[in-house]
Amino acid sequence: MTSEPTWPQPIDGTVTPRFAAPPSFMRMPVRQDATGLDIALLGIPFDAATTNRPGTRHGPRELRGASTLMRRVHPVSLVEPAALCRIADVGDAPVNPVDVMETLARVEAFVAGLCAAGAWTLAAGGDHLMSLPVLRGMARGMPGFGPLGLVHFDAHSDTSDLYFGTSRYTHGTPFRRAIEEGLLDPKRIVQIGIRGSLYGVDDMAWARDAGIRIMTIEECEELGPDAVAAEARRVAGGAPCYLTFDIDCLDPAFAPGTGTPEAGGFTPREAMRMLRGLRGLNLVGADVVEVSPPYDSAGITAIAGATMLFEILCLLAESRARLAEAKGPGA
Amino acid sequence: MTSEPTWPQPIDGTVTPRFAAPPSFMRMPVRQDATGLDIALLGIPFDAATTNRPGTRHGPRELRGASTLMRRVHPVSLVEPAALCRIADVGDAPVNPVDVMETLARVEAFVAGLCAAGAWTLAAGGDHLMSLPVLRGMARGMPGFGPLGLVHFDAHSDTSDLYFGTSRYTHGTPFRRAIEEGLLDPKRIVQIGIRGSLYGVDDMAWARDAGIRIMTIEECEELGPDAVAAEARRVAGGAPCYLTFDIDCLDPAFAPGTGTPEAGGFTPREAMRMLRGLRGLNLVGADVVEVSPPYDSAGITAIAGATMLFEILCLLAESRARLAEAKGPGA
Amino acid sequence: MTSEPTWPQPIDGTVTPRFAAPPSFMRMPVRQDATGLDIALLGIPFDAATTNRPGTRHGPRELRGASTLMRRVHPVSLVEPAALCRIADVGDAPVNPVDVMETLARVEAFVAGLCAAGAWTLAAGGDHLMSLPVLRGMARGMPGFGPLGLVHFDAHSDTSDLYFGTSRYTHGTPFRRAIEEGLLDPKRIVQIGIRGSLYGVDDMAWARDAGIRIMTIEECEELGPDAVAAEARRVAGGAPCYLTFDIDCLDPAFAPGTGTPEAGGFTPREAMRMLRGLRGLNLVGADVVEVSPPYDSAGITAIAGATMLFEILCLLAESRARLAEAKGPGA
Amino acid sequence: MTSEPTWPQPIDGTVTPRFAAPPSFMRMPVRQDATGLDIALLGIPFDAATTNRPGTRHGPRELRGASTLMRRVHPVSLVEPAALCRIADVGDAPVNPVDVMETLARVEAFVAGLCAAGAWTLAAGGDHLMSLPVLRGMARGMPGFGPLGLVHFDAHSDTSDLYFGTSRYTHGTPFRRAIEEGLLDPKRIVQIGIRGSLYGVDDMAWARDAGIRIMTIEECEELGPDAVAAEARRVAGGAPCYLTFDIDCLDPAFAPGTGTPEAGGFTPREAMRMLRGLRGLNLVGADVVEVSPPYDSAGITAIAGATMLFEILCLLAESRARLAEAKGPGA
Amino acid sequence: MTSEPTWPQPIDGTVTPRFAAPPSFMRMPVRQDATGLDIALLGIPFDAATTNRPGTRHGPRELRGASTLMRRVHPVSLVEPAALCRIADVGDAPVNPVDVMETLARVEAFVAGLCAAGAWTLAAGGDHLMSLPVLRGMARGMPGFGPLGLVHFDAHSDTSDLYFGTSRYTHGTPFRRAIEEGLLDPKRIVQIGIRGSLYGVDDMAWARDAGIRIMTIEECEELGPDAVAAEARRVAGGAPCYLTFDIDCLDPAFAPGTGTPEAGGFTPREAMRMLRGLRGLNLVGADVVEVSPPYDSAGITAIAGATMLFEILCLLAESRARLAEAKGPGA
Amino acid sequence: MTSEPTWPQPIDGTVTPRFAAPPSFMRMPVRQDATGLDIALLGIPFDAATTNRPGTRHGPRELRGASTLMRRVHPVSLVEPAALCRIADVGDAPVNPVDVMETLARVEAFVAGLCAAGAWTLAAGGDHLMSLPVLRGMARGMPGFGPLGLVHFDAHSDTSDLYFGTSRYTHGTPFRRAIEEGLLDPKRIVQIGIRGSLYGVDDMAWARDAGIRIMTIEECEELGPDAVAAEARRVAGGAPCYLTFDIDCLDPAFAPGTGTPEAGGFTPREAMRMLRGLRGLNLVGADVVEVSPPYDSAGITAIAGATMLFEILCLLAESRARLAEAKGPGA
Repeated sequence: MTSEPTWPQPIDGTVTPRFAAPPSFMRMPVRQDATGLDIALLGIPFDAATTNRPGTRHGPRELRGASTLMRRVHPVSLVEPAALCRIADVGDAPVNPVDVMETLARVEAFVAGLCAAGAWTLAAGGDHLMSLPVLRGMARGMPGFGPLGLVHFDAHSDTSDLYFGTSRYTHGTPFRRAIEEGLLDPKRIVQIGIRGSLYGVDDMAWARDAGIRIMTIEECEELGPDAVAAEARRVAGGAPCYLTFDIDCLDPAFAPGTGTPEAGGFTPREAMRMLRGLRGLNLVGADVVEVSPPYDSAGITAIAGATMLFEILCLLAESRARLAEAKGPGA
Repeated sequence: MTSEPTWPQPIDGTVTPRFAAPPSFMRMPVRQDATGLDIALLGIPFDAATTNRPGTRHGPRELRGASTLMRRVHPVSLVEPAALCRIADVGDAPVNPVDVMETLARVEAFVAGLCAAGAWTLAAGGDHLMSLPVLRGMARGMPGFGPLGLVHFDAHSDTSDLYFGTSRYTHGTPFRRAIEEGLLDPKRIVQIGIRGSLYGVDDMAWARDAGIRIMTIEECEELGPDAVAAEARRVAGGAPCYLTFDIDCLDPAFAPGTGTPEAGGFTPREAMRMLRGLRGLNLVGADVVEVSPPYDSAGITAIAGATMLFEILCLLAESRARLAEAKGPGA
Repeated sequence: MTSEPTWPQPIDGTVTPRFAAPPSFMRMPVRQDATGLDIALLGIPFDAATTNRPGTRHGPRELRGASTLMRRVHPVSLVEPAALCRIADVGDAPVNPVDVMETLARVEAFVAGLCAAGAWTLAAGGDHLMSLPVLRGMARGMPGFGPLGLVHFDAHSDTSDLYFGTSRYTHGTPFRRAIEEGLLDPKRIVQIGIRGSLYGVDDMAWARDAGIRIMTIEECEELGPDAVAAEARRVAGGAPCYLTFDIDCLDPAFAPGTGTPEAGGFTPREAMRMLRGLRGLNLVGADVVEVSPPYDSAGITAIAGATMLFEILCLLAESRARLAEAKGPGA
Repeated sequence: MTSEPTWPQPIDGTVTPRFAAPPSFMRMPVRQDATGLDIALLGIPFDAATTNRPGTRHGPRELRGASTLMRRVHPVSLVEPAALCRIADVGDAPVNPVDVMETLARVEAFVAGLCAAGAWTLAAGGDHLMSLPVLRGMARGMPGFGPLGLVHFDAHSDTSDLYFGTSRYTHGTPFRRAIEEGLLDPKRIVQIGIRGSLYGVDDMAWARDAGIRIMTIEECEELGPDAVAAEARRVAGGAPCYLTFDIDCLDPAFAPGTGTPEAGGFTPREAMRMLRGLRGLNLVGADVVEVSPPYDSAGITAIAGATMLFEILCLLAESRARLAEAKGPGA
Repeated sequence: MTSEPTWPQPIDGTVTPRFAAPPSFMRMPVRQDATGLDIALLGIPFDAATTNRPGTRHGPRELRGASTLMRRVHPVSLVEPAALCRIADVGDAPVNPVDVMETLARVEAFVAGLCAAGAWTLAAGGDHLMSLPVLRGMARGMPGFGPLGLVHFDAHSDTSDLYFGTSRYTHGTPFRRAIEEGLLDPKRIVQIGIRGSLYGVDDMAWARDAGIRIMTIEECEELGPDAVAAEARRVAGGAPCYLTFDIDCLDPAFAPGTGTPEAGGFTPREAMRMLRGLRGLNLVGADVVEVSPPYDSAGITAIAGATMLFEILCLLAESRARLAEAKGPGA
Repeated sequence: MTSEPTWPQPIDGTVTPRFAAPPSFMRMPVRQDATGLDIALLGIPFDAATTNRPGTRHGPRELRGASTLMRRVHPVSLVEPAALCRIADVGDAPVNPVDVMETLARVEAFVAGLCAAGAWTLAAGGDHLMSLPVLRGMARGMPGFGPLGLVHFDAHSDTSDLYFGTSRYTHGTPFRRAIEEGLLDPKRIVQIGIRGSLYGVDDMAWARDAGIRIMTIEECEELGPDAVAAEARRVAGGAPCYLTFDIDCLDPAFAPGTGTPEAGGFTPREAMRMLRGLRGLNLVGADVVEVSPPYDSAGITAIAGATMLFEILCLLAESRARLAEAKGPGA
């Protein structure tokens, strides 16, 4: 963990305009090799586990572009991620766009490699199934951290069992699988912003029975962003946890470019406030998923997604820096 | 009124993906004949009474498509419309796109037929003038219900008298005509979300003099959604009433696809909360109007419109089921 | 084969405007049961075999909508499909959007059922892999017709072997598989409009060695549409054949809504002229594929696709009518 | 007729950039009063006679904007309209957007007034019915010129009799009405680019029987633009004639923003070449119609429409100047 | 200052539909000469000082179009600007799109001329640098008013010093320059809605040191719109002041069409409420800037921008009328 | 010049899907250092010299994205650029988006550096003024090559002298400046596709007098693509020359995303055929300019632009390889 000036810094928008230069996440340097990295930004360009509208395979490219609008320092916390951590864009995880199972294996191996090299990961999806191989890869590459807690922003619980009669691996099932596999501790999972019509009255039964804390949009509205964040920190506890941000937690006007839009969601302002309320969380990895550029309009969704990536990067960098500090010099 | 399994149910999205199959409203079965129906979903593809931007003739088709995103059960009330009522998509009312007066007659006759067959109607517009022939058709097909109360979500009062010097039938005049014709009881009309610059300081005078309760957006913001809903229920009272939802009550960011956008409107979350607050209303018919797909972007308006249709369908199904229950077996 | 007035006819646009009524292919009646049908129009809403840009799962719905712009009679041949054949929209083939292999099986079974009931199929994709289960279903449901000839409009040969190291079933491989399975006779295959940069100099070697007649866009331009059509008829010969129209054979300006656009393609006028030049072909089935609405603009691609569907329906109806006539009364 | 420098000239794009200044047709001066004008450019913002997709009410505004891209001199003929004639933008004809019959009367009176003041008119639609009140207004304001010949670019003949059972005045009927009223001489009408599927095999029978020369797109392609123009001049003859350009004569890729797109149309290059081939025609009025901005994409249609307006303005200015010259000084 | 009926009034939307007639700001009369005007509406079609995304050169034209949706009377204050003041659209300021320094001079001279003729200006940008030549022009044309206070709605402080190493005049520097030049009194400047990631932790230091009152979006949310407006009035004080509204103070969903979008901004409803809370301010000029149509979607930004223009026009007309009244008859 | 396997090759689309990985031109490796390169692909993200519609500053980023659709081998010539030459994406030239003169200096220096390192350049604009600093940089970095011939595809001659009274450096003047500076030999310049209305009858006089061979679109259509290419080779002669491709030479339907669209242009098929007809030209540098993504629709322009970049890269790689071969081993 370091801020010495020799580590490559993001491109400066007052020197090179934000529309210039090949885009990378947050204008960070592009590296193939994760050695020495504190945080690896990666894309997972995959959408073949989508049950509704596809297109998130283009998410990483669009988010790289939109993230060039981000500057170096957080306006409220004044956190400067690249001053706290060694960060790079390590490119995209390998995928096979026509094969779900093989992609699960490839992404898991890629993330495991990053983690084994010492990097924590912040992934840009891709559909929500991709959280599963990331969690698997983290468990393999950083054994001893899990089972993890989970702070989960989403319109949907994503804890279904089967789709279309036979399919266990879709973007509607990742967290059920992750719990079954022991990657997540259901008691330390909080789902924020849940809404939308139901297939049946029992849609949430498994999740509730498993111990997941479901905060519907109605409850969130009632409590307000600060209290929601506090509750999320309470549920996740002090042990390591993961943060996953499905862009469809926002209202479709703020995130039309997504696979399963649900009217009545959060505003970006609310989402940013909740994320900022999570400072102090023991975060060890995160993702922003379900940004689907073909359904976007005027880049609204990409800008929102890139903003959330930046907010989360600030959280993750702080978390990583705390750990390094705790370990002391030489860690 | 029945929930026996023999009545055709909507297509199940966990079996047939939501993008598949020819679209119908809420994926309900398509029927030509309303006999035996409790609720008839219909489109009114007409926009020739529009004084500003046209395009609502495409509303029904687009709303059918977007409504395939809706699932069976309401997430808060847990109402399942197709379990309470026999519901079908009866297609579109006949129209003549170049003749306002003839269309008024055709739509009235079509709705009268549906009502005479026993069905209550939930219509998807079309421009707002179409509420008038629906109300006329209801009065003809279900004599004895009216004059009705009205819960009216809109940016505009739609109680003007004349446009362009000579035109009495435009999308800015339906409720004045309906009051004049005795279809509505002005004392039981509440208009919610009224805003936008005025032609003159007296724009609302006739409506106010007639006894309509106008709730401007400013008042609605002051009161909050729950109190607005309570006030609406108070005004509409216990007698049968109609609900009309003009999509332009939403802010243009949430409903760009409409004929007369006015900045500063409701969010969908507010609208949904107000609609949910209307449970218990003695609703006997409803519409969602002024969705104009050519001005939409990324389907934002269509998704909002389809969501409001679903919310209202839940209200209407409950209302119909209450009535059946009240009448007892054999009703 | 019949034109008696009792068979349901398409909706008449001078009575019911083209934007009205729930859309079906060519405004034909919707039937679940293919019994008695001469031609079944079906959608295959699937894109999970796409190696590049997805979205063709929305193709059938969008093509239904755009096809309502078509009227009853062909302007040059004066063929009126619904006067020659009993035609209906039989809905969409069942698919599993997250499982390629299972979808292959479901679509094959669905098409086999239609063919066994006596209907010839005209399918709207979906991605190009879907031609494979259609051909399999035809072979199962109408044994004795094959191996078929093939008239194939496309920018790409779609005869690759593997993608991403392991995947044999993608939208770039259907015709290699179909030849390997004996469904198509490679000597009677003609590919029209082939263009676009190559992965390697040998991209077309397998196809050429197999005996496929490849007509590059350059050759087509040299010969002109009439001569291309003549050559296609010569190659396909007099035995039964299939026609597949990949919308990406058109230039991206005329078909932006597709998965793998290649600059420098046909105009719709050229494509229509080539299709019209195929009259007399012994056509027993066809498809229009790779229309991807999320990448479309202003419905340009959907209109082009619906027009090609109509042109091909005229060819197929004539072919079916010829057969009926040849068999004589009672056939 | 004059080019003296005192007459206001169009705004110069090398002084005031083309995106600047309130837009008017061809950046000509805006005048309320037609006195002294040789040519009046006017908009007719009306689409309520549209049987299919609306939106042409926005045509004049969009065409004003796009026409600011035009410069002063024709690149091939070197005609400079504002040097030959006194030209101004006289604003929009009065319309009633919800009343077809009243609009017919208002537009007729407006055009009659312009003509009576001495101006020839070049109108920007608006739907194609608007040609009818223009022709009526010309006959009233400039008695003695008609019946006129007609050069008619269009995908459709627009000579139907009735729509929707009862409607005689739609954008599909103007030229039948104009012939019936003696405004046009059917023997001097040529229709160029006719195509698209038919309601029935007899769609064109009335037009052909009346003596109209119909040139289908297929014939036009066979002959080439120069021969089409020659044939048009032959049919129209030497007497005064009108030119009407329906933007849907272009292929939908070049004109997506229109009400009734038909695949397989002209390119703008072909259209421009045909128009240029009409030099020498005794043109006394013209229009460009059916530009529907809500269906446009990236302004493609508006640019094409504005270009056609400019081409036709050059023809009309030449025609008017010839007349003035023939009359000699003082005319 | 007058409301006598002889002064030209805006076009009436109940006579001439809002989509008709060449557009001008608020449908006011177009005048070249400012003599006798109380308020001049002008466009400044310039974007060459933009450091990020361009396109605001098209702002004035698009805002003229969208402003035709505005009617005559404010719905809450019932202010009718054209009844209080003589108002006209004086066209666009002259610009050189490829030369920043020359444009600064041209715009300053143009505004100085308007002010010298007695008109107060309400400008539609254009990028935010354009506030600088407006302030310079006001100081030259109306000496004695300044230094002015400033109510500044924006996501950004726009008080940077240099961009790209050498550039002092960009849309990120206007207010630093204006303070340095003595045009503004920094102690009477309030900036409302500031947010977005920072180039460095000291981005706001100069502004704060200069005495500017910065209200971040977080503070604004905390206080609510009414308190923000009160604070703005307090800071600006009773002396003459200017109001500048950068559309990017709104969230990107409400204003995607802008150069530097920042997630988490105001809603239009909040903005309108804050503006309405400014009644009584001694306003002597204003602008709405950074509307960039090429990045807009469905006209959302243009409608929001036109609405803000109308709100501000009501404030400015009231302010001007107060002054006239104070001066008494003959002023 | 070499094809040894050790030189990094483009990313293979059959391994890594084309939508994956951070985009670079043609998926070539990204290098900061041009040493050892034969061809440097660079972006010039600048549009401040645009007199009409801006946005080309986003051209390089969008063209990088669209170029990932290109594969390795040319389908007709079978040229494989990366097998003939060492090629890399060297990023974007430094620019100052608010300062034309400084950008001219920065780009010139950047290109001079690339050339001095031995690389030939293929640039993606940016507006057309950017050809000027590229030519200057080539002259400085590769002295002895010029004055160069020029093959110039464009709707406009770009040989104006002044814009807006005072500006000598705009996207309408680069080739006049380049001739004046001795960078180009006017007798060896050919301009292909010139069209569009004129500011005055003498617009082309200077160019013609200077000896430039102007081929209007009309002449090009008359001759056909092959003859145009032959004439271009004749004019350019055997000495070193430059190729500049302004995307606005295409018709707006094929390239809506550009600053100054002119109806009636080339199709991509024609353009590709002309480019292919230039094989053998002694090409030493090239650019593709005026792609303006904010005005694009569905990526049509970007795909066309990327395709032209690929076609030109094949020409340039062949030309470079010929030179290397001519010099013999060790060159």
